[in-house]
Amino acid sequence: MSATEVVVVGGGIIGLSIAWRCRQRGLAVTVHDGGGDDGAWYAAAGMLAPAGEAGFGQEALTGLLVDSAARWPEFAAELERETGIGVGYDSVGTLSVALTGDDLAEARRLWAYRRELGLGVDPLLPSALREREPGLSPRVRGGAHAPDDCQVDPRRVVAALRAALGPAVLRGRIEADSAGSDPSAGGGTRLAELVAARPGRAVVIAAGAGTAALTGLPVRPVKGLVLRLRGAPGLLRHVVNGWADGRHVYLVPRADGEVVVGATQEERADSTVSAGQVLELLRAATDLVPELGECELVETVVRHRPATPDNAPVLGAVGGGVLVAAGHHRNGVLLAPVTADLIAELVATGKSAPLLEAFAPGRFG
Amino acid sequence: MSATEVVVVGGGIIGLSIAWRCRQRGLAVTVHDGGGDDGAWYAAAGMLAPAGEAGFGQEALTGLLVDSAARWPEFAAELERETGIGVGYDSVGTLSVALTGDDLAEARRLWAYRRELGLGVDPLLPSALREREPGLSPRVRGGAHAPDDCQVDPRRVVAALRAALGPAVLRGRIEADSAGSDPSAGGGTRLAELVAARPGRAVVIAAGAGTAALTGLPVRPVKGLVLRLRGAPGLLRHVVNGWADGRHVYLVPRADGEVVVGATQEERADSTVSAGQVLELLRAATDLVPELGECELVETVVRHRPATPDNAPVLGAVGGGVLVAAGHHRNGVLLAPVTADLIAELVATGKSAPLLEAFAPGRFG
Repeated sequence: MSATEVVVVGGGIIGLSIAWRCRQRGLAVTVHDGGGDDGAWYAAAGMLAPAGEAGFGQEALTGLLVDSAARWPEFAAELERETGIGVGYDSVGTLSVALTGDDLAEARRLWAYRRELGLGVDPLLPSALREREPGLSPRVRGGAHAPDDCQVDPRRVVAALRAALGPAVLRGRIEADSAGSDPSAGGGTRLAELVAARPGRAVVIAAGAGTAALTGLPVRPVKGLVLRLRGAPGLLRHVVNGWADGRHVYLVPRADGEVVVGATQEERADSTVSAGQVLELLRAATDLVPELGECELVETVVRHRPATPDNAPVLGAVGGGVLVAAGHHRNGVLLAPVTADLIAELVATGKSAPLLEAFAPGRFG
Repeated sequence: MSATEVVVVGGGIIGLSIAWRCRQRGLAVTVHDGGGDDGAWYAAAGMLAPAGEAGFGQEALTGLLVDSAARWPEFAAELERETGIGVGYDSVGTLSVALTGDDLAEARRLWAYRRELGLGVDPLLPSALREREPGLSPRVRGGAHAPDDCQVDPRRVVAALRAALGPAVLRGRIEADSAGSDPSAGGGTRLAELVAARPGRAVVIAAGAGTAALTGLPVRPVKGLVLRLRGAPGLLRHVVNGWADGRHVYLVPRADGEVVVGATQEERADSTVSAGQVLELLRAATDLVPELGECELVETVVRHRPATPDNAPVLGAVGGGVLVAAGHHRNGVLLAPVTADLIAELVATGKSAPLLEAFAPGRFG
């Protein structure tokens, strides 16, 4: 397959990135965005920390994360040049911190893993930690600086991609061919109509958790709650990735004083902002940085990460001119550049990069 | 003074109640409501628990609270009859509970005080407590049932009062005579224009914390944060008034599954929903009733209680045909009936009830 036209189903950060890269290769591009702001990107904090996000034993995924992290600086710069929209790419580095002795033991396991991968991690004494980040609680037992970890603002990235693609992004949901004729479904376009024979057209399904209904692939929603606090700019200088009494929490400060606090992870599909989950995030955040308690709680937002049985994405062709790029779980923002580059290459040239092999849609048989 | 016309400045629960009672006495009534939903009533949980709210040594205030509590059943019934709007008056009683030994010592002091006042309080063993309210944490050390304590839904009360008064309630802010000619002030009516000689007209200032600017009386704002959770109806049967590790919290369940969780108390005038205060309320609430963590957090609302130096209201004439009814602090909902009855009597007949003596506006000299 080497297509000249691509239809992308899904207007989240993955679908938009693929469409943008495809258009840069000269393909005719259309994106069907059924969701507005309901994608996982809307909640995402935008940490670009490959080793922090890969589990032990997931070497193929870690390789993809590390590869994509290396693509981010150019992806961000190019997008900003093309659209004039700043996407908040920042490379100040991350502080990895641990509240208790048990938390520190857990953190040290991860730091050792980072070093094995050749990623920077510089352990710091509590005094040195607090010198870098005076807002940290005196109770914090230890930490490390990860100089290579970066951040980006996912909402700005999506705004820039939308601006870059302009009228190529259409509003409207694409329905599975097996969907009933329920009038409440809104009479959207059927997937079969998109796929129907047109020489040189490829269809890319990048519909997050909605990919399951469209393709039959095992992509499930993993509920996540993220808070947004607002305080005086400068309360935090680094991204803080921490453990507080066994709970993992990250604190991502933006230049304007916003601090993103995330994230819960629950195997459920509802969108309820549960009081207990808000409590757990606030408790962990203020245990690590007490002054966050003085910030305004400006937003509580629930979205669903699309995850597969092995929590790695599904990337590649499924036959009949259809490709899939979904199931990025916690890593949609980090993986957007590599996904976009390799899927665009596959669409335009028919060549599948070796890096994609481990993520073939057929692996769940 | 015995007026035939009354102008009420302030459309909160106090101002509306006074206007309603005045109209029932045959007076011509106008209410100037500058605030919409910015009154303290909008946050209030609606607990009607006189002894729970009066501090030690505030006998005059306690007397007023007890008197008003006794007026609530008829006030609610009459308002419902007149408007057809249910106001959620409920007399299931309150459980007063204590999480730790220290909390229990504190609670016992209050129970003894209630008994001195002749109010019911029946101490319960933890097992009996949990039989009445199975959702209570097994950690709760002790508690008591206060069979006389009731609740009402303040938002419904205000809706009913607004319906009863209809077009007599005007939107628009009344400005102090000393206000500058700043055009951003919106060109509202001046207080002097209302008060200007008209035989038989009385003006009642019931403007909450705004009363200070209008009268010069020392009424200050006391910030309060209240949460609204939503879960399955029946999670709680009683109002729970509790102490959790030194923090006072109340949980007020409504028939539809809403649970009001309140309230913080801070000497500040801003309206920020601070992360730390949300955390403290959620922690105390879930310490007492763990299952509340499963509820949805549907609302965080900040309002300001109007308080005076002795935290008791200012009720009475200030001269020139002007009366004041403000500064009700935590007790605006509970005190609405007695305030309305006695101020309406004072306006219509010129007679000041003995109960008002201790609350004269002149006492701050």
